[in-house]
Amino acid sequence: MSKSLFKPLHCGISVANMQESIAWYTKMLGCELLWCKKIDMLNCEVAFLRMGDFEIELFRHHNTLPLPPDRREPNKDIQTQGIKHVCYAVEDITTLLTDLRAKGVDVVFGPNQMEGTLMGFIRDNTGNLIEFIQKNS
Amino acid sequence: MSKSLFKPLHCGISVANMQESIAWYTKMLGCELLWCKKIDMLNCEVAFLRMGDFEIELFRHHNTLPLPPDRREPNKDIQTQGIKHVCYAVEDITTLLTDLRAKGVDVVFGPNQMEGTLMGFIRDNTGNLIEFIQKNS
Repeated sequence: MSKSLFKPLHCGISVANMQESIAWYTKMLGCELLWCKKIDMLNCEVAFLRMGDFEIELFRHHNTLPLPPDRREPNKDIQTQGIKHVCYAVEDITTLLTDLRAKGVDVVFGPNQMEGTLMGFIRDNTGNLIEFIQKNS
Repeated sequence: MSKSLFKPLHCGISVANMQESIAWYTKMLGCELLWCKKIDMLNCEVAFLRMGDFEIELFRHHNTLPLPPDRREPNKDIQTQGIKHVCYAVEDITTLLTDLRAKGVDVVFGPNQMEGTLMGFIRDNTGNLIEFIQKNS
């Protein structure tokens, strides 16, 4: 199977408040809003945001249910089977996390040494976990 | 913020059975096992598999809890806040889904037209959703 058969395109994330989440991903992670609209067959408002070559797909269901509390904690979240998080490589995690903290982002921990790499977790405004790893750390 | 600040590196997925999941990702999606070991501080067996330029990180917690049933269905999964799925771009989704069905993969639906693109969902052997979209469809 060829190396490039599957190219990561987007990550789908369900959020509590669409406008607040668009603002968060735009302000905190520098995403660019591509579009946002209601999709009746999904009972959702859906938005796509560009993040480099990747995209973030946000869903806000008409009857949204809250994030299970365990999903806010990296080490608790992994106990329950399911898609857990996406990790992004960054050049300088120390500067990134310092900048994000200064902007008010909820940093779970980091930078920490883990299996020989510098890594950390943040939460988006809904509480969804996002991991960062420093390249070549 | 630069376009390339965040590069998708891996997706973390908690599974029911590590050896069966390594076999599934290897056989069905052509992933290459990089390493698998116990990490006591996480109470997990952890494996990394390469998939092109991306990686799949598998967790199997010592006291693993089952996938919530709603998470098996794309349109139900998005009702609950959380990271939902990763979508991969593929060249030819019709051939891909035909091949995956022939290999025994649990195809949820597809290829379907959705917002002008051909897309579909499969489940891994734990029931975790994986989305595909055909590039330039």
